[in-house]
Parts: sequence; C-alpha cells; structure tokens
Amino acid sequence: MTSVAILGAGAVGVACAGPLLQLGLASRLTLYDRDRDKARGEALDFHHAAPLLPECTVAGDSMDSIRAADIAVLTAGVHTQPGQTRLDTLDHNLAVAVDVADALEEALPRVVIVVSSPVDVLAEYLTRRWESRPVHVFGTGTSLDSWRLRELLAVELGVHPGNVHAWVIGEHGDSAVFPFESARVGPFSLAEFGRLSGRPLAAERLAEIEQRVRRAAYEVRALKGSTTHAIGLATAELIRHVVRDAGRLEPVSVRVRDRVCASLPAPIGADGAGAPLMPGLGDRERRAWEESLAVLREANQRIAI
Amino acid sequence: MTSVAILGAGAVGVACAGPLLQLGLASRLTLYDRDRDKARGEALDFHHAAPLLPECTVAGDSMDSIRAADIAVLTAGVHTQPGQTRLDTLDHNLAVAVDVADALEEALPRVVIVVSSPVDVLAEYLTRRWESRPVHVFGTGTSLDSWRLRELLAVELGVHPGNVHAWVIGEHGDSAVFPFESARVGPFSLAEFGRLSGRPLAAERLAEIEQRVRRAAYEVRALKGSTTHAIGLATAELIRHVVRDAGRLEPVSVRVRDRVCASLPAPIGADGAGAPLMPGLGDRERRAWEESLAVLREANQRIAI
Amino acid sequence: MTSVAILGAGAVGVACAGPLLQLGLASRLTLYDRDRDKARGEALDFHHAAPLLPECTVAGDSMDSIRAADIAVLTAGVHTQPGQTRLDTLDHNLAVAVDVADALEEALPRVVIVVSSPVDVLAEYLTRRWESRPVHVFGTGTSLDSWRLRELLAVELGVHPGNVHAWVIGEHGDSAVFPFESARVGPFSLAEFGRLSGRPLAAERLAEIEQRVRRAAYEVRALKGSTTHAIGLATAELIRHVVRDAGRLEPVSVRVRDRVCASLPAPIGADGAGAPLMPGLGDRERRAWEESLAVLREANQRIAI
Amino acid sequence: MTSVAILGAGAVGVACAGPLLQLGLASRLTLYDRDRDKARGEALDFHHAAPLLPECTVAGDSMDSIRAADIAVLTAGVHTQPGQTRLDTLDHNLAVAVDVADALEEALPRVVIVVSSPVDVLAEYLTRRWESRPVHVFGTGTSLDSWRLRELLAVELGVHPGNVHAWVIGEHGDSAVFPFESARVGPFSLAEFGRLSGRPLAAERLAEIEQRVRRAAYEVRALKGSTTHAIGLATAELIRHVVRDAGRLEPVSVRVRDRVCASLPAPIGADGAGAPLMPGLGDRERRAWEESLAVLREANQRIAI
Repeated sequence: MTSVAILGAGAVGVACAGPLLQLGLASRLTLYDRDRDKARGEALDFHHAAPLLPECTVAGDSMDSIRAADIAVLTAGVHTQPGQTRLDTLDHNLAVAVDVADALEEALPRVVIVVSSPVDVLAEYLTRRWESRPVHVFGTGTSLDSWRLRELLAVELGVHPGNVHAWVIGEHGDSAVFPFESARVGPFSLAEFGRLSGRPLAAERLAEIEQRVRRAAYEVRALKGSTTHAIGLATAELIRHVVRDAGRLEPVSVRVRDRVCASLPAPIGADGAGAPLMPGLGDRERRAWEESLAVLREANQRIAI
Repeated sequence: MTSVAILGAGAVGVACAGPLLQLGLASRLTLYDRDRDKARGEALDFHHAAPLLPECTVAGDSMDSIRAADIAVLTAGVHTQPGQTRLDTLDHNLAVAVDVADALEEALPRVVIVVSSPVDVLAEYLTRRWESRPVHVFGTGTSLDSWRLRELLAVELGVHPGNVHAWVIGEHGDSAVFPFESARVGPFSLAEFGRLSGRPLAAERLAEIEQRVRRAAYEVRALKGSTTHAIGLATAELIRHVVRDAGRLEPVSVRVRDRVCASLPAPIGADGAGAPLMPGLGDRERRAWEESLAVLREANQRIAI
Repeated sequence: MTSVAILGAGAVGVACAGPLLQLGLASRLTLYDRDRDKARGEALDFHHAAPLLPECTVAGDSMDSIRAADIAVLTAGVHTQPGQTRLDTLDHNLAVAVDVADALEEALPRVVIVVSSPVDVLAEYLTRRWESRPVHVFGTGTSLDSWRLRELLAVELGVHPGNVHAWVIGEHGDSAVFPFESARVGPFSLAEFGRLSGRPLAAERLAEIEQRVRRAAYEVRALKGSTTHAIGLATAELIRHVVRDAGRLEPVSVRVRDRVCASLPAPIGADGAGAPLMPGLGDRERRAWEESLAVLREANQRIAI
Repeated sequence: MTSVAILGAGAVGVACAGPLLQLGLASRLTLYDRDRDKARGEALDFHHAAPLLPECTVAGDSMDSIRAADIAVLTAGVHTQPGQTRLDTLDHNLAVAVDVADALEEALPRVVIVVSSPVDVLAEYLTRRWESRPVHVFGTGTSLDSWRLRELLAVELGVHPGNVHAWVIGEHGDSAVFPFESARVGPFSLAEFGRLSGRPLAAERLAEIEQRVRRAAYEVRALKGSTTHAIGLATAELIRHVVRDAGRLEPVSVRVRDRVCASLPAPIGADGAGAPLMPGLGDRERRAWEESLAVLREANQRIAI
C-alpha cells in the first residue's frame, strides 16, 4: 500500500485527508504543518475514528515519515482574500514552497502533487528545481474547474455528470480556457445534444456557465471564506489515479511549453502525470490559450531559478 | 431502500446477484427459479456470508416477494449453444418470458430489466404486453457490448477505459452497429488521439476491434461454456443507475421505432430508461442501423401480440 | 433513497456531511444554518465536486427541504471552550434546540439525531417535547467515546480495532462509565487476551486509557480548537445504520430512566434507536452509572418542560 | 498494489475472483487452471467488464505471473460429492496440491491461502513442505463456519451480525468445535442477551444452530450442487486483511500443535496468519477440541512428508 504525506494541515489539507482515508487509498497518512499542534490535533481527531475507516496509520508532525512518503501533497500557504487573484498569493506561497522543498530535498517522494495557489507557478518552481531528480511533479491545475464545468453542464442539460466530457485548460485562474468545441455529452456535441434533447444551449447560456466556473472559487469564498470540499475531493481523486496507476486522462498542471506549467489533459498514473495532449482549438480558443501561457510566463519570472 | 427480484437463478442471475449484494444496492434480493431448490440454494449460499456484505435480506423461491419488488431482472431461459445466434434462443425464451409475465401480471414491479436472449425481442414483447400498465421495461441491450468496446479500445490506445466514450447501438447481436465517428478519448476523436499520442489506429485495426466485440460472447462461450461475469456486472451497473435515479446515459434496448426495441443511448433512472437519443451516423452506419432494425422487426413477428 | 438534513453548517455539520456524501447514504442532503451564506457556501462547495461523489442533491438554506427530510441531524450550537465542560454549553444550545424544534414542529422527520452538546440533555428535551409525535429521537451519546476506546485498546493490545468489543455508557461527558468487565478482544476478556498474547494490560494502564478517552475531546480541542472528524464519521456511521435499517447495537443516548436520556447499547435501525440493554456492571461501575444519571437528572432540571 | 493468483478457475476460484475485483484488492489477478481454456475464458469474461471495476489487470493461464504473485490462493481440486465428507477428497486433492506446489517451488509468493478441501490437511502439507522457505501458509479453515454461525445467531437473536462475536474452531469439517461460552452479542454473553432482550436461547435451539452450521455446506450442496458464494466472499475478506496488513483476528487453519494445522483465532496481516490464540474451553469443548485434532492427526498420516 501507499504512504501519503499532506504538507499543510489547514482546511484544504484536511479536506484532502478525509476522502483519502475514507476511500482507503493510503496505508499511512502523515499530516505536517508549521503549526505542529494543528497537525497533531487533526491527525488525532482522525485517529479517534479509526474503527470506522479502512486501515490506515494517521500521524501528525513527523518530517521523517514525510520523507518516506510515496506521494506528497503540497497544500500549505495562504489562500486568496477578497479582491485578490490567485497570483496575488505568489510571493508568500513561493516562500512556503521553497521551505517545504528544502525539507524534502534529501529523500524525495516518488510523486509530488501541488495544490497551493498559484498552482501553475508552484508546479513550475518544483519542476525546475527537481529537473534531474527522480520525482514527478504535477499540479491539480484545472482538474477541479473541469469537474465544476461538467457538473454545471450536467445540471443545465439534465444529464448525469459522468456523461459530460468537458475540459478546462490553461492557467488555473482568471485566464483559464474553455474549449467547448470538443465537449461531449455521451456521444454528442453540445449542439447535437441540445437539438436531440430539445434543450438547445444558447451561446449566452454557455458563456454564463463558463463565467460561473471561472467565478466558482470566488463565489464559495464570498459565502464561506474559503474553498475546501471540492478541491479536497478533486485531489483525492487524482491521488487515486496515482495509487492505482490508472492512466486516467485529467487536465493537470504540467510542463506544456519551455519553463511553463499549465493544464492540459494528461494520463495520471504511478509516475504522476504523463505527456499532456492538446485538444483541437478554434481561433478564439487558441488566442486565449496563448494569453494564458503569457500570464504564467510573466508570473514565472518571479521564480528565482 | 430497494427490493430487487432476479428471475432465473442460473449462472447469469447469480452473476447479477453477487455484485448487487456487494455494492449494497438492494435491501431485499429475491432469487426465483423454476428449479426451486436451485434458487433456495443460491440464496442460502449468499445468506451464509451476510456478515461480509452490506445489509440485505436474501431469499430464494418466493413469488410473493417478487411481486413486491421495485425492480425485476429477467435472466431466465437458455443461452446460445455453439453454432447458435442469440435469435436461435427465441422460441424457448419467449415461452419463458410469457410464463414470468403471467406470474408478475397482478403486481408489477416499477422497473423490469430484460437480460435473457434475444434481449431486444423479449424487451419488445414485454413493452407491448404492458403498454398501458405502470411498469417501465428496458433490456440490457448493447450496454455490455459498449463496455467491451471501451475496454478493448482503452487497451489498444493505452488509456484508462473511463476516458473512452464509445457506443454500440442497434441489435444486441450479430447486426450491432458501431458508430466510431462519434467515439471520443477524453476530448479527442479516435483519429486525433491517434495522431497526438503517436499511436494511430489504422482502419483495419479498428475493424478487428469491432470484430472482437462482436465475437466476444462467442469467444468466452467457446472457452468456458457461457458468459456470466461481464453481463452480471453490466446489469448491476444499470440497476445502480435505477436505484440512484442517476439519469446516466447508457445504450439500452428500448422502443426506437414502431413496435421495435433496440439499443440507443438513453438516460437510466428511477423510471427505467428515458427517451433514447440517436447519435449522428455516417451513410454506412445508417444503412447498418436500418438493417439491424429490419432483423429485429422480422424476429418480432414471432411475438404473438 | 433517503433525504438527510443537517441543522448547523459549522465544522461538525460539515464533518458529518462529507462522509455521508462519500458513502452515498443520502439521495438529498440539505444543510441549514442561521448564517444562510455559510450553509449555501458549504453546499455549493460540495456540489462542485458532484461528479466525484455518488449521486446526491446537495442544497443549502432551505427550511422546506429540511421539513421533508427523513433524518435530521442537530449539530447547531456552540462547542465547549477551554475550561468548559459539555454541560456549560447547555443554556445556549438548549435555546438553539428550541428554535430548531419550533421550525421542525409542523413536519417532523422520521428520525432526529442529536449531536450538539450537551447531547444527553438535548436528547431528553426533544424526547419530552415530541413524546406523542411520530418521530424517533436519539443522541450520538457515547458512541464516539466507545470507538475511541476501541481504537486505543487496539493500539495498546496490537490487534485490529474491529476485534475490540468495548463500550462506554452513561453521560457523554465527564461522568461517563467504562464497564471493562464486559469488554472483549475477539472471544477473550481483556485479562485472558493479555495473558494469551503475552501483553498483560495492567490496571494502571487501563486506567490511563480510560483517562485518555475521557480527555480525548479536550486534548483535540487544545491542539486544534474543536473536535470535528471523529464526531462527523461517528454520526455518519449511525446514519448508515438508520438508512440501512441495520439493527446494529451501538451505545447511543436514549431514555434509560424516567425523564433521563443517557447512553446504553441499543439497536439502531429505520426507527432510530430501539430498546437499550444494560450490560452487567460491577459494584464500582454500578455506582458510577447512578452518579452519571444523577448528573444528568440535575442538568435536566434546566429543561423548561 | 498487490498481485493475487488464484490456482483453480472452478466455481470456487471464480467466486473468490469476483469480490476481489469488485473490492479493488488486487492490481493484478491471475487465474490458473489445468483446463487452460477455462482459466482464459473466466479471465476474459471479467476483463470485458473492466470499465465497471476498480483498475486491475486480469489474466488467465500464465504460470509466470503466478510465480510473481504476492498472494496465491489454492482452490483447485474436487469438492465433496453427496455422501462424502471433506476428508474423502483428500487423496485426489493432495495430488493436486503437490502439483501446484511443484510449480510454485522456484518463486514462492509471500502468502499462500489454502481453500481446497480438506483444508487443514492441505495447509499442513504445504506448511511441512515449505517449513524453511520464506512463505506464509494458512487455510481458510473455520472462518466461513464462524461467519455462518454469526449470521444464524444474528437472525435468531434479532441483532446485526456485526454484533455477534462467535467462533468455530478445530477441523473445518465434521469435528469442528463450537465454544459458545465465549460467544458475545455486543457486550453480552448469549445467556445475558437472551435474558435482557426477552428472547432466551434454549440449549436445544443453540444445538440446532450448531447443527445447521455443521450441515450448512451439505445443505447448500444438496440444493445447488456445490458451495461457492460464501466461501468466495470469506476468502476475499481474508485476502483483504492480508493486503491491508490489518492484524484482524479470524479463525484460520494454522499450526496449533506439532504437525497439525487446525483453526484457532489468529491475526491476519501482510505475513499471513500470526500466532493463534486458544479461547477458554469448558470440559466438553476441550474434549471435542482434542478429538478434532486426533481426526486431523490421523488424516495427516496420508501426507508423505
């Protein structure tokens, strides 16, 4: 079985840990936090319910077990405040990532999954830093945006979200790209499905849905202060594909261009994310994709290496 | 929770029951068979493992509990022998279906799922018979063929089967139709994916895969005598969509034309299969579809009503 | 399937909701909170991950759907602060319970599970209030203490917690009672198991474990501010027994004496908790049990009805 | 993840494979049978449903992958015919076990679980043969009898089988021993529970239940020809404890005396079954236990080593 370390025992770290334990994906789970009491407390709280969960050793506050982990998940850092974009958290969270990377340096896990914002920049930082080391880095990227998009389309179209095959690519942030041309509902394009089901999806309605996905994190934050459950479940799902070496295609943040990480569909397995695949894009989408990469290239200049 | 009755405690009935029990989809499962000892024995054998399964009452041989079931699954009848097609089992299995329908007549379940061969003809028979009654009939149809196709394409393309969105439609039998144009791997058409992944899928290879899916049941039968596990798991999956009112699109056998049941993608929920949707077909596929319906229309003439 | 309403969308309410959704125990989950944005935000955050969860409609802030729920879970109210016992939260949380009960009055759910502190007093309040109404009330009581005890004994003895059959009874609070005489490890008493396994469990060690269980919530609170994961998972487990009509014996808070609710093993099923069963107690344990009831009887005087 | 090989693709082997796949316990499952087509056919039939199961490679007929397995499960051999006891299958099934052991000899799995009859004799044979080799052998023994006993007691007492802690020990066969003194329902002895719940369990009724458990396999065989589901689910459960290194106590067949394997509660984990523990026995039970060992000692004389 697999040892997983979650770096950062804040609300997001804990929201990853719960589903992970319930799905029985780890045989050992370690929570680490600068606030050691916090990490110990969260671990102890899960430990008390051990008879109700699949077998797993849960521990808080041990850098040693983190070093021995197969998979490390970086959730540490601040989240965006009202009025901030994800990129505004860069300086603080890059410093956190540097500290964590220093601590992991000697005994790297096989796979590192970046969740902290801005996820594409931090994934790029760790990718650069460990270019020649035996570790596979990827970021959760637009995987969650894609699941949100599938859910909103499913509700709109009155179908099961498992039948909606839609993808968000690019930056996990304001410049994310929505290639609706390639979206499918079962075997149908959105237009075909709209026609067949008698529920045509007007362009404005589609634009609204795109906007709702873009604003989803802001909307949740305005209501409850931070986003936790969805990103926790999304991260647990990606960990599942790693643990089971599933080869499942999901959009995650990996190197898509020289010194830039951004999200494209890539197969997730035991060695993290494989080679990303670029969907066919229309002209407008292609421009949006290049703009998204430009935003990230600019942000990446703040990485010192 | 839900009460499920399986009519026919042969190898297929039992192969449905196992996954159903393990997934915790029923609160009551009744096995019925003309051979009452067989039904009682299978139920008792499951009952002995009750501490290892989600809570469910399992019983054999009670027509009364079958009458009270929410969902009835028709698996009774003979399966094809070497050299036979599925339609060759029609006379015998139609007689079985008549008997079962007579027994259910007074207190119909909400949903009846037909598994026995020839599934499209038997689904048509029960649909005609109960046209004005409050029962929803559909057949497993090409759902299993579609899962087989997805698996074989996934292996061929080196991706996860969950990313392969491909469908078989028409007769569950020799005239089944494979609309590969609408197949997708993640957001990609088969051709795009082949190009992007560097594993182009030649037309001959695709034809071979189609052929393997068409021959899959024959191949398994030649090796072990009958097909059981795959159809059992496929049926349990469809029952899951009914129990959870999922609205999930899968190809199942429903009325697609006047007095003909055949498979098209349809949403599966608490009321069985909803309105089927016709994927866009090329010329060759459209001809194949019409031929498949013609085969079934011909067979349906052997139904007395 | 089952509709569940969680009253109180704070940390405990959310810690119940997550496991409930992941286990697929509800077909509809409603979160309600005085802070309507909070309830809406938590629901939306779960909703965004719907493609990753079993089918369930999640909604925030609708008193109407709460009224239609099969099972309501009361988690609203303040939790204990450093230096407080659970009984110190009584005045505030009783007022909250009165408000909630007023709102539910017209259309009662079938089962109400009390989680808020002090759980025994609030369970008694609702039991009195709805004595002649068709609703079944019980409190989570010492179920969590019992799971904690089983886990700590399992670690101490080097066995699986599923083999440890130990129970805490009485008040869910400082006067809880630990009848170790009836505890078993597989077929063995604690003393027998200690002898056979070569790990005798000294009386002092047992007293330490009892003390750790008593202090568990205080310990977690000192480290992370509140207890959430364990009580959330415990509540989800009890809901599972209700949804599946399991008849599983767990210690929960029900009427054990005239106008006093406290925890004893009782079978949990579709109609809540059945008749509680009193384990054989030694003299010391019997005195502790009577003292625990006296503490609760005294607290119950603050209930106005 | 874990590689599991099932040796013998008959009804019992297949009944182990289904639950194993559905629970996601193996990353690779190999079915082996003397009848190679049978093994290939069963594997192919499961393979066709891969999109409906957790990720697992399923293969038939490869002695090589069996050699690389972490866990091998011996289900090959004949089952008892009407009028036979389990010991009557000894000569035939011992020869089968010798063949299998010869084939495994060079590259032993970490754990070998014996299911074939007579399980205690075959477990003893492999234990002797591989005494100095790095392999852990145990037999399913009376684990299934114990689950059957728990289920029948649960039905009789109107409680959940998860609350019934009862054990069968000794030979998995006609001389099995039922130490009812140590049985518990939650924290209660059978007598206490009977008194408290108002359902006293008369000695004759208990004797009947014992008799039904003893005859369970014969009863199922008389009705349907062989026992499959319960032993398959029981074996999958034991494999779960091995895969998850659970340390769960279950009665399995291990060395309990010089050159005799029989069932006693033992912790099941990554290294198979740990040291067995002897429950306290009354005089009558102790005599029955010695008689059971005598039966097995006698049978073991037919082992050539």
